[in-house]
Amino acid sequence: MNRGIDTDLNATISYYREEINRHLDSFLANKVDEAARISPYARDVILNAREYTLRGGKRLRPIFFIYGYKCISDVEGDAERAIIDASISIELMQSYLLIHDDIMDEDELRRGKPTFHVLYRDICEREFGPGLGSAKSVRYGENMAILTGDLLEAYGEEVLASSSFNAEYVRKALCKYLEIVRNVGYGQIMDITSEMQGSITEDEILMIHQLKTASYTIEGPLQIGAILAGAGDSELQVMREYGIPLGIAFQVQDDILGLFGMEDKIGKPVGSDIREGKKTLLIMHALSRCTEEERRFILRTLGNPHLTMDEIEAVREIVVRTGSLDYSRKLVRENTERAKRAMIQSNFRPEAREFLIKIADFIGDREY
Amino acid sequence: MNRGIDTDLNATISYYREEINRHLDSFLANKVDEAARISPYARDVILNAREYTLRGGKRLRPIFFIYGYKCISDVEGDAERAIIDASISIELMQSYLLIHDDIMDEDELRRGKPTFHVLYRDICEREFGPGLGSAKSVRYGENMAILTGDLLEAYGEEVLASSSFNAEYVRKALCKYLEIVRNVGYGQIMDITSEMQGSITEDEILMIHQLKTASYTIEGPLQIGAILAGAGDSELQVMREYGIPLGIAFQVQDDILGLFGMEDKIGKPVGSDIREGKKTLLIMHALSRCTEEERRFILRTLGNPHLTMDEIEAVREIVVRTGSLDYSRKLVRENTERAKRAMIQSNFRPEAREFLIKIADFIGDREY
Repeated sequence: MNRGIDTDLNATISYYREEINRHLDSFLANKVDEAARISPYARDVILNAREYTLRGGKRLRPIFFIYGYKCISDVEGDAERAIIDASISIELMQSYLLIHDDIMDEDELRRGKPTFHVLYRDICEREFGPGLGSAKSVRYGENMAILTGDLLEAYGEEVLASSSFNAEYVRKALCKYLEIVRNVGYGQIMDITSEMQGSITEDEILMIHQLKTASYTIEGPLQIGAILAGAGDSELQVMREYGIPLGIAFQVQDDILGLFGMEDKIGKPVGSDIREGKKTLLIMHALSRCTEEERRFILRTLGNPHLTMDEIEAVREIVVRTGSLDYSRKLVRENTERAKRAMIQSNFRPEAREFLIKIADFIGDREY
Repeated sequence: MNRGIDTDLNATISYYREEINRHLDSFLANKVDEAARISPYARDVILNAREYTLRGGKRLRPIFFIYGYKCISDVEGDAERAIIDASISIELMQSYLLIHDDIMDEDELRRGKPTFHVLYRDICEREFGPGLGSAKSVRYGENMAILTGDLLEAYGEEVLASSSFNAEYVRKALCKYLEIVRNVGYGQIMDITSEMQGSITEDEILMIHQLKTASYTIEGPLQIGAILAGAGDSELQVMREYGIPLGIAFQVQDDILGLFGMEDKIGKPVGSDIREGKKTLLIMHALSRCTEEERRFILRTLGNPHLTMDEIEAVREIVVRTGSLDYSRKLVRENTERAKRAMIQSNFRPEAREFLIKIADFIGDREY
């Protein structure tokens, strides 16, 4: 990989990440004011939603959103401000999804801090007295998290609906945005129901990846941005041919990093996918190729919160020996190449095209 | 009240109610198909969401939506179909809010059948075996209800975003729609937090009424419909002057019926507001005017699920003796009159104006 290109890419990503954070912060500050005009309770909730949303995140989705626009149309001055403003819609969607997901998965931590429902469970215990009983605090915490997710879902759509782009484009962009919300919802229903069911096929895993990650992370944001610039069907089709394989590469790389990555880089404990019982493609592939004894061992580790480093190491060895790591790496490589080919053949504006080719390599090679 | 007029009104309401139900059913049938293309799990969830949404309901909100449009513009043929289609957006919002509210309030029944989270708790126990443990089934039930509410929230917005009206009007209508979602969310935060807090002022109750009911039940739907017909600010202002007082009248009448209504007409057990600990205006007013002994008695009944009919009768007597029933009835009457005056003075299209004046009387006099 050309490190010179890499430096440019990083600079661009950093520039937009900061801009996106600034716009997000200012949008949510206005929402804090809006809520404060109603009640101090509502104000505090939105203050916490702001803190939660700004805890971190790579902001890749709004960056793809912006570059979807830039594929079709130049941005300068006001146009850049307007598209960055609109791009935070997808980050508000992300925040809504994470808050609701954390309730469903009963997670306690998100980016090193309490998840939203845990935050409000604790606030409840502190403010309204320990006499309440913990069931009431848990209920209150989840209620606040449900409501805040609902509000953030609406905020994201408001950002688009109130944007200053051509009204017909806005209407179409909203339809695409809502399609993503639906797909993620359907994917999540599949995910948690098949977990209950206790069995899942490789096809179902790929389908869930496609619904929850592939279309949502890359294809969707690119297309929404492009629609706001007036893109037609053939242009959206190219974005699909680029976005879907790259989205799959992104997810599979995530699975690899979750098991083999460095804890300080990926920002979560190594092996947490296994602890959470996630049946990643990596694990499913290994299960279909290991010995019966290894199979029983892996199934015992899945969902075990008290996993030791030795056990994680043993899972890694099985994944390597069965060729599942190589298989997954190949999947990442092939999908990244497929995405790049689609982009190279496109007639998008050169600056955006170059950026999207480079970021595909970045996603395929990333260590976090 | 002129009974002849009443018959016309009922016929009109019945006509639109049936049309709305037909459009809702057909929209949700398409969503069942959409979900079925993804997974049988998703299909089943949307089938249940359809059943839930079609269980009943007065459909007053979409009727106000349609009449908001009719205040400004004629509807015939295709235009009528299009506005009825768009009006179901507000009923999908209602369905989303009820499903999430039922989780928050831990309610078991909605319109005589299991609430959504209870339905899926039971499905989980039946399908995935009793070996799971009840905590897991409860979690699964709530998760499905959270996701289904999220999907219905998005469906409602999709109905508007994909409608065939002028794109600029659609954009503005969506902004108004999302304002309602926010207001209801803020109101709900106030409501459940003040409940935890254990104290609430009359001003706060009025504010919650305004956020959760007044703007949402009448003003909002009227305005969205009117915006789709191209209404300007002065026309929306008249709808506010009609919708806000009538929304308050609607809510206070609801409170009265909840304590004094006939069970077979209101469709829920008499006194359920008290059992649920709802501090309605009726109760708050009585609390501020009764004896210390009566006050302790009322506070003991609030939130007590095992209330007897004798105790309900005793609360009723206090509410009557303190003049709180008269006070509330007067509030309903005055607000209904204020709403009617605003409508009479408007220059809206005559048929719509007459209907909205008549329905104001209906709301003020209704027994269910």
